[in-house]
Amino acid sequence: MKFSLDCYPCAVRHALWAVRRAGMNEEMQQRALRWVLQGLVDMDAGDGSHSIMIQTHAIIREMTGIEDIYCQEKTQATQEALSLYNQLKDMISQSSDPFETAVRLSIAGNIIDFGALDGYDLNASIERVLQQPFALNDLEDLRAAVERAREILYLADNAGETVFDRLLIETIQKKVVYAIKEAPILNDATREDALAAGLGEVAQIISCGACSPGTLLEYCSPEFRKRFDNAELIISKGMGNYEALSDVRAPIFFLLQVKCDLVAGNLGVPKESIVVTGN
Amino acid sequence: MKFSLDCYPCAVRHALWAVRRAGMNEEMQQRALRWVLQGLVDMDAGDGSHSIMIQTHAIIREMTGIEDIYCQEKTQATQEALSLYNQLKDMISQSSDPFETAVRLSIAGNIIDFGALDGYDLNASIERVLQQPFALNDLEDLRAAVERAREILYLADNAGETVFDRLLIETIQKKVVYAIKEAPILNDATREDALAAGLGEVAQIISCGACSPGTLLEYCSPEFRKRFDNAELIISKGMGNYEALSDVRAPIFFLLQVKCDLVAGNLGVPKESIVVTGN
Repeated sequence: MKFSLDCYPCAVRHALWAVRRAGMNEEMQQRALRWVLQGLVDMDAGDGSHSIMIQTHAIIREMTGIEDIYCQEKTQATQEALSLYNQLKDMISQSSDPFETAVRLSIAGNIIDFGALDGYDLNASIERVLQQPFALNDLEDLRAAVERAREILYLADNAGETVFDRLLIETIQKKVVYAIKEAPILNDATREDALAAGLGEVAQIISCGACSPGTLLEYCSPEFRKRFDNAELIISKGMGNYEALSDVRAPIFFLLQVKCDLVAGNLGVPKESIVVTGN
Repeated sequence: MKFSLDCYPCAVRHALWAVRRAGMNEEMQQRALRWVLQGLVDMDAGDGSHSIMIQTHAIIREMTGIEDIYCQEKTQATQEALSLYNQLKDMISQSSDPFETAVRLSIAGNIIDFGALDGYDLNASIERVLQQPFALNDLEDLRAAVERAREILYLADNAGETVFDRLLIETIQKKVVYAIKEAPILNDATREDALAAGLGEVAQIISCGACSPGTLLEYCSPEFRKRFDNAELIISKGMGNYEALSDVRAPIFFLLQVKCDLVAGNLGVPKESIVVTGN
């Protein structure tokens, strides 16, 4: 997806949040923000919406030497989600439609997002998403595709959300390959984050080879590309993956909460919608 | 007040809002935003918090030839406030403390602000501010100063808010000189906006000579400066005037709603506070 005017304020808001998290002093924060702003000035009209996030985090890494500024937030998010695991597991097994409940919960977990949001309320998200009508509803197509598939490629989004993905994977009882990021970017799940959420017990964890927010195929490893190209069914979580893959032809379903104007406009739904949509 | 890191996202958010209001095409919007961003990159650490707003609106004026992009919003805000005038007038006259009620209503009207906010709910603001404790409360000092004063210099803030100022001026029954902006900037009140709100009947309307957001003395006319320097008592409305005058020695009371982190930090109160504070 292409960078739009709506990305400007969001990018600057996020950059300020990130430089403050990175423990820079005021003068370094100012310098980092100026670099981010210069990057925004220099962007080409055709650049992708991810470019500025990648650039922002490269600047912060370069200035601080810290590889993973979201480490603490990711650990906390995973722990919070794990503390709810038993209760959510019961909720799914007692539901009249465990598949739909598990899909909804996996979307509820998508509120854990430090890219589009400055903070979130996980319990409020669960309560809301269990009731909220889908703005785009390909749930039955997804159900049929899951039933047909022998193996599913599942594209992870954020740490903590991983626990909700695990619940969905446990519910669908198919062979799942769970693709995470090669290295930290934002609060996207890495192998460590997936393992901490217990994904190692229910799926084969692979790296997509990239450390971009969203599975941008041009940054992915050849091994992952091959797997992606040959996948029977792909479940893609979150806005970042939608931004990266919405124009790609593939047997893919996007599960997400719509947290920004750019994605809302592209999907043709209001902000704060929940969506299950096939490509 | 000096520009802070918190001003960056706010400036970009506001600039996007403003270029969209100005009826530019997408390519012009992009160009205008890049100029604003370049202005942010080039700012000096010591620049005032108003600089970027002045720059943004100069860019929009230059690119569109439109002098007053908030014309429609200002007219609507004034009409909405006037539609409440009789009801609020009764509320004040029936109050056990008409002065406090009128002060609170004038602060409630300060929600009308297209600089710090993208939108507002005037009725919700009235309801809230009538009940909300003051985070800084120099109300009794203000009451005594008003009782002593023969003439009050009242620094206007935004169009529509003017109607609430009129109610306060009618309540205090002193000679009031009401200072507005020389030319349009943001939704700050000009002479036309003050007249449309009925201020001509209750106060002497003068221009401060400047068209900066907030009464920045360095931009004001010598006549206004003289009046300011000799004022017995100054009532200053809104954040813009606070940002401009908080460090100036003068017999001044600031009445405002705190709508941004920079001002909240400077006053030492939470965002969304209401404040009556002497200098």
